[in-house]
Amino acid sequence: MTTSYLLSPSGERICLKPGERADDLQLCGLYCIQDPDRFCFGMDAVLLSGYVSVKENETCLDLGTGTGIIPLLLSAKTKGKHFTGLEIQEDNVDMALRSVRLNGLENKIDIVCGDIRCAADIFPRSSFDVVTGNPPYMTALHGIQNPNDSKAIARHEVLCTLREFVGAAAALVRPGGRFYMVHRPFRLPEIMEELRSFKLEPKGLRFVHSYVDREPSMVLIESVRGGRPGMDVDAPLIIYKSEGVFTDEVRLNYRF
Amino acid sequence: MTTSYLLSPSGERICLKPGERADDLQLCGLYCIQDPDRFCFGMDAVLLSGYVSVKENETCLDLGTGTGIIPLLLSAKTKGKHFTGLEIQEDNVDMALRSVRLNGLENKIDIVCGDIRCAADIFPRSSFDVVTGNPPYMTALHGIQNPNDSKAIARHEVLCTLREFVGAAAALVRPGGRFYMVHRPFRLPEIMEELRSFKLEPKGLRFVHSYVDREPSMVLIESVRGGRPGMDVDAPLIIYKSEGVFTDEVRLNYRF
Repeated sequence: MTTSYLLSPSGERICLKPGERADDLQLCGLYCIQDPDRFCFGMDAVLLSGYVSVKENETCLDLGTGTGIIPLLLSAKTKGKHFTGLEIQEDNVDMALRSVRLNGLENKIDIVCGDIRCAADIFPRSSFDVVTGNPPYMTALHGIQNPNDSKAIARHEVLCTLREFVGAAAALVRPGGRFYMVHRPFRLPEIMEELRSFKLEPKGLRFVHSYVDREPSMVLIESVRGGRPGMDVDAPLIIYKSEGVFTDEVRLNYRF
Repeated sequence: MTTSYLLSPSGERICLKPGERADDLQLCGLYCIQDPDRFCFGMDAVLLSGYVSVKENETCLDLGTGTGIIPLLLSAKTKGKHFTGLEIQEDNVDMALRSVRLNGLENKIDIVCGDIRCAADIFPRSSFDVVTGNPPYMTALHGIQNPNDSKAIARHEVLCTLREFVGAAAALVRPGGRFYMVHRPFRLPEIMEELRSFKLEPKGLRFVHSYVDREPSMVLIESVRGGRPGMDVDAPLIIYKSEGVFTDEVRLNYRF
């Protein structure tokens, strides 16, 4: 069995374990280490990173960061000062930590191994300007096969319900700070109710449609801790203008 | 001052009072009597009538029916058995009643003068298969000039809040029945919360955009009394494909 290495900007050798690969993010020379047999980030994480606003000098926490894709992308796309990723699965944390070193981002990104349900004990309360999250989309009951499976944990509410996810965000974002989430449209009523129950007022919404005449496949939501009621809904984000041809917006702002 | 008359299908003379006009709805020969100095129905009512599903033999109540535009359109567009419009403003009730006679729909449409806040005392509870509504969009505080003005009552929550409106719908629709509403997107979080608080589960959502690259101007919502969580979001409804040119969907399904 061969082990391969990649070099970090400082010349450190970063190993790739069997089955892993380092994906070129097509952004500022960034790479992300992933294992296709476990879970790979999808278009949802990329679209979330384009929806999130992190201003100069702000700090950002990503809940359930997986292999760290959101902190990696936001470190390049925004002027934020510091990014933290919280992840419960040790294998993912290990990959994310190596990705941070591979990209020479040790001063800008921390990866922490821990449970979202205990996040308010891991970090000081109200300590982040921005919180982001790509939570599991499906309730635990939705035809799950193996609850220990890495993909199941990322996709199903095995280890963390929507309410626990939103509660963690509400505890850690500062008053007036923003919480950004990507989710499935079918759960929007629950999402809105959970957000408001934790005083995270929904302030922005954008649906993502593969084609203009299709139902949306994802929804991007911005909420503000303690915000006043009143939500801006954006024009729909359309991915393709015809089969295999990205719309101008996607072509210019994202590189898939 | 001249008074004009129109003839109903049975030959009855229906008077038009000064300032009133009878608008051709471009649908099955229907007319709607309106007074432009008071309040005229808009595209929102027409789009709501296209979003509502009333099945064969079902009964339908329209809350705050104004000049009765929703019952008039639904009587032609659906196979519903009977339609009722509830309206608090006597002048509107008077116009709606004459529109019903002008169209010969006395057997299919009732117009009732009454307050939405007392609707559960006016009609038997749980007695309608479908309830519809085009409630005032703005809270009472939103820069209102004259609270007695007919247009203000239709547009602002002077006489009926969102909560009162939704509560009336929940009281009058049967278990498993549907409540359809058109509203402004910026109030969606409140709308979802109010619906769910009255056990009206949001099951369908469609945003209306004037152009595909613009934010939505309206939102159409279907909820089901006692429904299970899980919402279908439709493809966006786009009005224009270029300036003054309707999209195919609007051209084929609506006649403005």
